[in-house]
Parts: sequence; C-alpha cells; structure tokens
Amino acid sequence: MSSPGSAAATAILKEEVDIVIPTIRNLDFLDMWRPFFEGYHLIIVQDGDPSKVIKVPEGFDYELYNRNDINRVLGPKAHCISFKDSACRCFGFLLSKKKYIFTIDDDCFVAKDPSGKEINALEQHLKNLLSPSTPFFFNTLYDPYREGVDFVRGYPFSLREGVPTAASHGLWLNIPDYDAPTQLVKPLERNNRYVDAVMTIPKGTLFPMCGMNLAFNRELIGPAMYFGLMGDGQPIGRYDDMWAGWCVKVISDHLGLGVKTGLPYIWHSKASNPFVNLKKEYKGIYWQEELIPFFQSVSLPKECTTAQKCYIELSKQVKAKLGKVDEYFNKLADAMVTWIEAWDELNPSGPKSEALPNGSAK
Amino acid sequence: MSSPGSAAATAILKEEVDIVIPTIRNLDFLDMWRPFFEGYHLIIVQDGDPSKVIKVPEGFDYELYNRNDINRVLGPKAHCISFKDSACRCFGFLLSKKKYIFTIDDDCFVAKDPSGKEINALEQHLKNLLSPSTPFFFNTLYDPYREGVDFVRGYPFSLREGVPTAASHGLWLNIPDYDAPTQLVKPLERNNRYVDAVMTIPKGTLFPMCGMNLAFNRELIGPAMYFGLMGDGQPIGRYDDMWAGWCVKVISDHLGLGVKTGLPYIWHSKASNPFVNLKKEYKGIYWQEELIPFFQSVSLPKECTTAQKCYIELSKQVKAKLGKVDEYFNKLADAMVTWIEAWDELNPSGPKSEALPNGSAK
Repeated sequence: MSSPGSAAATAILKEEVDIVIPTIRNLDFLDMWRPFFEGYHLIIVQDGDPSKVIKVPEGFDYELYNRNDINRVLGPKAHCISFKDSACRCFGFLLSKKKYIFTIDDDCFVAKDPSGKEINALEQHLKNLLSPSTPFFFNTLYDPYREGVDFVRGYPFSLREGVPTAASHGLWLNIPDYDAPTQLVKPLERNNRYVDAVMTIPKGTLFPMCGMNLAFNRELIGPAMYFGLMGDGQPIGRYDDMWAGWCVKVISDHLGLGVKTGLPYIWHSKASNPFVNLKKEYKGIYWQEELIPFFQSVSLPKECTTAQKCYIELSKQVKAKLGKVDEYFNKLADAMVTWIEAWDELNPSGPKSEALPNGSAK
Repeated sequence: MSSPGSAAATAILKEEVDIVIPTIRNLDFLDMWRPFFEGYHLIIVQDGDPSKVIKVPEGFDYELYNRNDINRVLGPKAHCISFKDSACRCFGFLLSKKKYIFTIDDDCFVAKDPSGKEINALEQHLKNLLSPSTPFFFNTLYDPYREGVDFVRGYPFSLREGVPTAASHGLWLNIPDYDAPTQLVKPLERNNRYVDAVMTIPKGTLFPMCGMNLAFNRELIGPAMYFGLMGDGQPIGRYDDMWAGWCVKVISDHLGLGVKTGLPYIWHSKASNPFVNLKKEYKGIYWQEELIPFFQSVSLPKECTTAQKCYIELSKQVKAKLGKVDEYFNKLADAMVTWIEAWDELNPSGPKSEALPNGSAK
C-alpha cells in the first residue's frame, strides 16, 4: 500500500472502527494509547459489579456498558453474554455498527519496535485487514502485499489476488500468553523477540487466537466472534478467545476468507495469577483434546453462505458431537443460537447479507 | 536446546553431514564459508562441460563429480539426473551416506543478522532438523522449541511433543527468489527484512521450496528429494526445487514428518537473467496451475510407510493424472521410478527402512 493511500484510508476508517475494551477497573492505560486512539470511538464493556464507577481519562469518545445495560438491551437473551470474564467483550461486537473492530485488554500497553519507535497497533491491524490474505498456499517471504516483498518463485499466479481478510491476530511482547501449567513452570519467561512478519494462517490449520490484541472485519465475520459462556456460573474460563478463534477459523475457511497473525505487537504488562488460571482452565485443558479433532473435522454445507448461517450450523454440530463430552457443550450450543438471534435483532439489515455484499444499507 | 548439548551435537554432526553444491564455476565463494564449513565434507556436482576444471579453494574436504562420473556411476539410469540445470545437485544426495544434507548454491554468501554478526546457516539448519516440528496446529509465537519461547495458551498438550523434522528451508537476504515475470516487473527489489523466526509449514499446506539454502534429513526424506528432469533436452527449468518441495511436503504430511521454513538467511548475491529465466519457466508457470491442485489432492495409501514407497506411489499418480497435461509428465514419472531404483542400488541397506528405524545398519 502506498503511503498517501494509507493515510487517506486511515482517515476514513475513523468512521468505520470501534475499539472494544472489557474492563473491571479505571482505564488509565488509555492515556498511553491517546496518540493512536484519538478520534476513534470506544465501546467499554464493564465486567463485574455494575455499581462500581469506572473512570475513563478525559478526551476519549466512548460509550460504557455494565451488566445492567447488557440485561436491559438483551432481556432474556442476556444469558449468552458471560459475566466475570473478559468474554463479555463480545457484547461490544454485538452493539457496534462499524465495519471494523479492534479489541484490546486494559493491561496491554504500547510496545516499541526494535528501533525504539512506538508501535501503532491499530494502524497495523487495519493494514492487515485492508490487504488480502493468502490461505491456499504458503509464501515463504510472509505477507506478499507488504512493501518491498512479493510472491516468490513457484507461487501460483492464479492465487496471487488473495481473498478478503476476516481477522488480524496481533502478538505480545513481555508477558507471553501462556496457559497456567506453562506459567507455573516458567514464571520468569518473557517474550523479547520482535518477529517482523505478518502471515496468513493456511486454510485447514487451526490456531490459538488470543483476544488481547485482536481486530476483525465485523461485516465479514462478526457473527462468529462469540466468546462463549465463561466465568461466573460456568465450569470454565480463559477459553473464550480460543473458542471464538476455532469457530472463526473454520468459518473463514469455509467462506473463503483469511485470518492473519503476527504484527502488531502490544506490550503485555501483567502476568495473571497462574493458580487462579489453573482453576479456570483445567477443564479446558482436557476438553480441548476433543475440541481440536472436532474443529479439524468440521464440514459446513454449501448452503451456509454467511457467517450467521455457518454459526447456526456449527452450533448444531457442537450439540451433536460435543454434547457427549460434557453437558456444558449443550448449553454452549444453545447460547450460540441465542447469540445469533441477538445479533440479528441488533443488526436488522444484516451486515454482509447476501443481497447487500457491502453491508451498506445500515 | 541448551548450549552444551548443542556444541556436543554439532561436533558429532560433522560425521553426519554432507554439504552438496552444484556448480559450473570455480568455487571461490567457499572462502567466505570457511569458518562454518571447516571439518565438514563437501560433495560438489559439476554441471555442464565435464572437461572444464573447477577450482576448489585449498583446505576443504571434498569429492567432485562431473557428468562423466554420473554416467559411470549410474549407467543406463543416468538419464534421471538433469544436465545443464542445478537439478543435478540431487546426484549428491544419492551418493551421500550421511544422515543430513545441506545444499547451497555457489552464489550464496554468508549473511549478517541485524546485530551485524555473521550467520552460521549450517548450524541453524541443524538446530531446525534436530528439534521437532509442529505441523498439526499453529503456534503463534513460532518455533516453540526455541530458547525463550514455548507453546502458547490453547495449544493442545497432546501435540506438544511434535514430530521429527524432515526438512529445513532457509531464506535469502538481498536478491529474493522471484520468478521471471516478477523479476522483470521489479528488477530493483531487494529483500532487506530479517524475520527472526522459524516455523513449521502446517500439514496440508504446500509451499514453494527453493533449493538455494536447504537442509534435510536424508534418512527420513532423502528418496523424495529428487529434483526432476530439467534443463538440457527438457521443456522446463527452474522448477526442480519446486517439484521436489511439493513431493517432499505431501510425503512428509503422509509420514507424519515436519517441514520448517524461516531462519537461516544466506546472502543471495546475484540475480539471474530474467529473460533466460522466462524461457525456462514459462511452461512451468501454466503447468503449475494444474500441478498445485494435483498435489493438494494427492492421497497416499497406508501401505506407503517409507519415503521410497510413497515416491513410487506418487510417480504412478503423476502418470495417471498429469500425463494428460503434457507428455513430459509421463517421462518425469518414469524418471521418478528410475531415481528410486538408483537410490536403492546405491543405498542397499535402505536408510530409514522399516526394520531399522535409525538406519544404523549402513
């Protein structure tokens, strides 16, 4: 992308991007992001006690929702939004009317690249989302659309146009995103390696999607970005983003969309408590051994031409095949349907409906 | 890998590695590699006029073969080794009796990492080959076996042992490995980006394997490292490594082996002539559009438990499905069989035979 084009694109995108932040505390971390988030709209989803007052630094354009708001907006459907878990962030995805979402945790700070320059994570995510993906064949020099790179010898010419990008998964310097067992075994491990690459995760390959530093095209894949039932009243936590990632990936593969990972980095400041995490994760750690083969074998019928249709079909397969792993998955499958009902209710004209490929009727 | 272990491993590996170099000129480039290649054995395959004398700098331990040697050693099977094309390098793979091969082109110099340190490409390839691969699930922090990194949250524990690594594909700074059309369009493009990562190419994903800077485990995958019929008397060139890469990848996928790409970089000094390249490549450029779907759909039966058996089966599928694309593929399929016959003849005890998993009977 040429520089002038990028600048123009970024200016326009201020009207097309919502930044979604789940939190339980004052959002002082936003001060650091001010140069990059200024002019963008924030949707803050307050988790936990709704009577607590969350302070947002001055000068930001935001709306803030707590549990009372979720109950008020969704009524009987509110149960599909998790409580006391950052999975509640997906309420923000539901409410947004924008084309692109960037979601970030409140313990994520601005990282620096090896030259010492502060990284504009949002800008890099938008670059990732605005350029195509290449899920059908691996390019050994990574993102072929980046300046100074191209497709290498032997890359089929018929595949060089790529496909639309559904999601951009960014990484973390400092505290790596480890599970509780790895945190316990390697409490001091820090990620200091800046890998200067963005790549498409190939079709048919699953990955562990972390919700800490994530952007996506809401029109293309929003209905699949459901973070499941986690936290309060649920037997599991810390698998919200993983669940969303596996669903997003199989649906993107089916719809011919791309998912990228790599740049941008954020600075992850704080390791969560590994003992608490272990309690949240332990069922996930063994359920996962059945979930991965399930997602690897998911096949969606041709009639599923939108993310909504794919997601409803996926919920049926979850119930049919994972219900026997644990009763929880029956409840989750029902919540997946409720989520789509809520999505359709709040997004009546249907972003990315078949009749309106640009979703421009909203 | 811990440092003492690595040092010991590297010392042992001097007995287990051959460096294979195809060339048509004096090997002055070796002077630059002296600190890294010292003590290793070189197999030099002289292409073109066998009466030409190729000078090798003093102090290297090498054997050199020209076309006359190829004819003498292989007799009627010599036709499977290409002439006037760097595809002739695979004759060195055939003759070697070592466990690991590193092959490098004679226009590849020692690259420097961003700190200015010269990169020991061979050592990095051996690290890649000696540590497992992770083809079944993507790790977002790249190689999980590297120091300071691990598997991220959400990576299934049952997959963390990985699988043996068959091949390590290194990259190039300076002149990127572009096809003729891209060379013509972007004559001045240089690769200056050092991406500090090694990754496994996921199962089911094909990639463009370049033979310029490549290492592999000869016992695991050697019989599939055939560079086809290229150059003199053939309708195609510059697809030798691509062909080998597609075969190696589908066979590695079938056998549960891994293929890595990324580090190490070499410094690629010289862009080849794009007009000459276009003449060599143009059939490949359109044949490739049929080759990729073919390789993407290859399925090997369970009985194929060795690289040899897989390769013979693949040759049958090439004949059955690509013979109709062009008569050339019938000839190539026959040469694939000849190659395996030559392999078995020169490697009688059968490296990586089923009865001798360590290939230790040689």
